Amino acid sequence: MSERLTIDDLKRFIDTSPFIRFLGLEIEEVDEAKGVLAMKMPMRPELERADGTGQVHGGPIASLIDTVGDFAVILTVGAPVPTINFRTDYLRPAGGSYLIGKATVRRAGRTVAVVDIDVFDDQGRLCAIGRGCYGSKAG
Amino acid sequence: MSERLTIDDLKRFIDTSPFIRFLGLEIEEVDEAKGVLAMKMPMRPELERADGTGQVHGGPIASLIDTVGDFAVILTVGAPVPTINFRTDYLRPAGGSYLIGKATVRRAGRTVAVVDIDVFDDQGRLCAIGRGCYGSKAG
Amino acid sequence: MSERLTIDDLKRFIDTSPFIRFLGLEIEEVDEAKGVLAMKMPMRPELERADGTGQVHGGPIASLIDTVGDFAVILTVGAPVPTINFRTDYLRPAGGSYLIGKATVRRAGRTVAVVDIDVFDDQGRLCAIGRGCYGSKAG
Amino acid sequence: MSERLTIDDLKRFIDTSPFIRFLGLEIEEVDEAKGVLAMKMPMRPELERADGTGQVHGGPIASLIDTVGDFAVILTVGAPVPTINFRTDYLRPAGGSYLIGKATVRRAGRTVAVVDIDVFDDQGRLCAIGRGCYGSKAG
Repeated sequence: MSERLTIDDLKRFIDTSPFIRFLGLEIEEVDEAKGVLAMKMPMRPELERADGTGQVHGGPIASLIDTVGDFAVILTVGAPVPTINFRTDYLRPAGGSYLIGKATVRRAGRTVAVVDIDVFDDQGRLCAIGRGCYGSKAG
Repeated sequence: MSERLTIDDLKRFIDTSPFIRFLGLEIEEVDEAKGVLAMKMPMRPELERADGTGQVHGGPIASLIDTVGDFAVILTVGAPVPTINFRTDYLRPAGGSYLIGKATVRRAGRTVAVVDIDVFDDQGRLCAIGRGCYGSKAG
Repeated sequence: MSERLTIDDLKRFIDTSPFIRFLGLEIEEVDEAKGVLAMKMPMRPELERADGTGQVHGGPIASLIDTVGDFAVILTVGAPVPTINFRTDYLRPAGGSYLIGKATVRRAGRTVAVVDIDVFDDQGRLCAIGRGCYGSKAG
Repeated sequence: MSERLTIDDLKRFIDTSPFIRFLGLEIEEVDEAKGVLAMKMPMRPELERADGTGQVHGGPIASLIDTVGDFAVILTVGAPVPTINFRTDYLRPAGGSYLIGKATVRRAGRTVAVVDIDVFDDQGRLCAIGRGCYGSKAG
């Protein structure tokens, strides 16, 4: 395993990605020992599902899942890794002023890492869940 | 099954969704008899994965998959339906001036519909594949 | 929601399924309030992945995931429900004298229920994880 | 990429797996150039979903999907590879005297391969679809 990345390294990745800048993702919680990373996605008008609903479209929710899962693996293995595949299950409409995506690395093996990502609204309600498989340089 | 929706109905759904407007999705091909719908997503600067790569971030690709699969079911069953869950597999980096998401309804049952979505770049290369499960009002 | 099913009802479902009888599944833990159900699958020679490995083939592991997730929903909603789709991630080879599949219902909505299933070996090591979407009669 | 495996090599893998012997899988069709492999799973009493239904339990269907997808990658990359994860969608009850699982390799990259698997009954009806991600030694 390579050397650990710092939160500042993560922030640098974020700053160099136009799409993540558009989503406005911010690091909310980090617990490297547990393989946990949470990020906040603030609501903005372009993310709305349908005019006047105040609900976020599924696309940004899936994007949040993909991205926070990826960053959780990056923190764990110490290097940028690609998303290989992921699953998104929508559980209820997601509105409010922001969403939180909380990723937990379930396993970081020699070639792939598997991550669970829970998405909560600003009331703490579980709105969607993701499960992703990423490249890995661990082991 | 309710009455068929027209392409104009689909366009109206698109026009009332801030996020789909942001993605700039356009209908590219419709074959209702085969349950096929293709949509084009033009590249725009905010979709870039990392500065200067010219590659689309995975989030917009997953968003395209989710959306075009949903619209394919809507066309087939004649009513708006929610996405229940979907899987995205990234096959290669996706760049160029636009992406095409082509959805094929594999089964529209009484309660759910299952759709395959292939994503191609502007050279016709397969960049990602999706498989989604949506609500259904068919049967 | 219909009336609750008892553990005896679950055992009756198990007893009338030739394939579940073949797998020899036994109820290990039930916590209806938490939507949790765990089942044990004893090792038997026909389940082996390759001669002499002592490891279980992925097929029975996926079968365990599918089944215990289904029964967790049945317990929660009080009626038999079909599996709609599920994902299996294999994390490490699974051997030993039995496997435990532990299902947690994440959400039981009006039309579908979503369940996470963790599979452990007889040393408590996490060997595989599943996520399934089932029919639902809750709500 | 290593040298090609022959059909006889595949049969040898099958013969050394107690679980695949139990399922009775037989090679039905091979088209290496297209990355296609089809296998037949004969009905047997232990595979039944519920007494007297004549329908196959979902577990053997998922096992067929996992296995035929794996063998399709093995044929393509010329070496045994592990299943990393896979998704199963059940489309309709599957009965009759046998099922056919037909796998198509969608992409075999440097580290992973992605495969689609369609499952048909003995009347040619599509009963289930799978999508799997496997290790790869291609490229």
